[in-house]
Amino acid sequence: MWTMPPTDSVLHVLSFIAVAAQSMTAALAAGRRSMDWAGVCMLGAITALGGGTIRDVLLGHYPLLWVAHPIYLAVAAAGAFATILLARLVHRLNLAFLVLDAIGLVVFTMAGCDVASQVDVPLPIVIVAGMITGCAGGVLRDILCNEVPLLFRSELYASVSVVTGLFYVTGSGLQVNAQLWTALTFALGLTFRMLAIRYRWEMPKFVFSDEER
Amino acid sequence: MWTMPPTDSVLHVLSFIAVAAQSMTAALAAGRRSMDWAGVCMLGAITALGGGTIRDVLLGHYPLLWVAHPIYLAVAAAGAFATILLARLVHRLNLAFLVLDAIGLVVFTMAGCDVASQVDVPLPIVIVAGMITGCAGGVLRDILCNEVPLLFRSELYASVSVVTGLFYVTGSGLQVNAQLWTALTFALGLTFRMLAIRYRWEMPKFVFSDEER
Amino acid sequence: MWTMPPTDSVLHVLSFIAVAAQSMTAALAAGRRSMDWAGVCMLGAITALGGGTIRDVLLGHYPLLWVAHPIYLAVAAAGAFATILLARLVHRLNLAFLVLDAIGLVVFTMAGCDVASQVDVPLPIVIVAGMITGCAGGVLRDILCNEVPLLFRSELYASVSVVTGLFYVTGSGLQVNAQLWTALTFALGLTFRMLAIRYRWEMPKFVFSDEER
Repeated sequence: MWTMPPTDSVLHVLSFIAVAAQSMTAALAAGRRSMDWAGVCMLGAITALGGGTIRDVLLGHYPLLWVAHPIYLAVAAAGAFATILLARLVHRLNLAFLVLDAIGLVVFTMAGCDVASQVDVPLPIVIVAGMITGCAGGVLRDILCNEVPLLFRSELYASVSVVTGLFYVTGSGLQVNAQLWTALTFALGLTFRMLAIRYRWEMPKFVFSDEER
Repeated sequence: MWTMPPTDSVLHVLSFIAVAAQSMTAALAAGRRSMDWAGVCMLGAITALGGGTIRDVLLGHYPLLWVAHPIYLAVAAAGAFATILLARLVHRLNLAFLVLDAIGLVVFTMAGCDVASQVDVPLPIVIVAGMITGCAGGVLRDILCNEVPLLFRSELYASVSVVTGLFYVTGSGLQVNAQLWTALTFALGLTFRMLAIRYRWEMPKFVFSDEER
Repeated sequence: MWTMPPTDSVLHVLSFIAVAAQSMTAALAAGRRSMDWAGVCMLGAITALGGGTIRDVLLGHYPLLWVAHPIYLAVAAAGAFATILLARLVHRLNLAFLVLDAIGLVVFTMAGCDVASQVDVPLPIVIVAGMITGCAGGVLRDILCNEVPLLFRSELYASVSVVTGLFYVTGSGLQVNAQLWTALTFALGLTFRMLAIRYRWEMPKFVFSDEER
């Protein structure tokens, strides 16, 4: 999310879709905790715009996208509100949502890398900025829903973001055609994420228990 | 909270009252979780000053009020500490607290709109800034107490803030006498909140459950 | 953490040790919640670098240390990853960890005071900045592990940080030899913390319960 690519209108449209998709996913989580309508919209907006916000605050990159362009807030709130009205339908479209959410992850990651590149930070921080943009919104959602963030526990989500970011940044170094590289990165990231979901790829877990304490 | 209105000493005094009131409410929440004295004061300060802090960080508006004027930190900590000593009394004054907390909500909202207006953001963001100033402290309190934020689940709290902000900002557009308008907004917001508490007005809830996931 | 003292290489080395130690402690907490490897490393980095990050965001002090010097991120992640491999060993070295964690608390507090002094804030805020640097990382860890922060509930942790900060700042006023004073503060803070652990010093708790609500 976050960068408004004026030339690349496809990425622009994708970023609106991504904001709406992440907001709708968060709205379902809000419904599981019986939040009221205002709470659903707030949780949706925080989830959809939170990743980019955290990145910009950490980089000191002002103004925030949604402060300059409140339309993003409106899209996020509208996505959450639509979910209230269409909950059953939304639920049945589970697969569509997984795809939209994956699009969000990949688009946000690339946008995050773009912003970080502009403010001139070391290369590893560009990758980290992409990952924060893609993943931190979901962490905020889980904190506000009073759960240990899903990101830390399962699924290849952060890893997809890191691989996508690495691939994307490599392209800038190679001086290849930017549009082509963006499309390639998008395809790679999306495929990786869908395969991870399909085959339930997971990272090894670190399980530790002690008696004392 | 947060803006120090040098000319308008009434708002100034009200903002100190609001900081103390929100800190005292947070201290009671801390007591329910058996926090130690230092924890009570920290939770009080974070709750009372957190909303304005989040707003300023999101707007890139530095220095923060409590960094420039540490007296606000002292007022918040003192309010929390007083609550430890007077817990039973404070508890009996339940109604007084609801009024003070409502004053805080309305005063913080107006101050938040003022600050956002100064930094030149779009109008919807002025309203959002007011709402964040009024409500985000309570969200931080609930996160630190390990609960799903009350703000998302019940009561007309955010809605009161939004209505207050909308009414307040309308006045700036109308070029009416500022002091009068502030007083009117204050009366409106406070009345709305007290009525919402009295008659238990609530937003509809979004209840959603699924078997899978 | 966070200031890179180019002249004082001892403090520099200590700050890397502190980052690694806090990350390792967080990794054990992550293991208790069965997080996956990526989650363990993220939680470690957030815990070890979160205190300084929050301080810098609140003071508007950019760029963040780990953005300018990603080596800190690497140290934190490496510490967490080493903990996965050596969990049993790490666990047995419990005492060593308490000492390393205490070193972290004291070093971070002094570094936090240093940074705040540079950006010219009121004296009480210098102390608060030291405390935030020393303690806020652990609060983030507990929030992400879905627990009421330990900091608010028990142990002299924040208090050790405040006393250390007060003592450290006093020295700057006295114009004594900086290196000597740093060493003295370090010894004092470390001793205070170790005594607090050894003799289980605790603050009085505020226990409050009500029937209603």
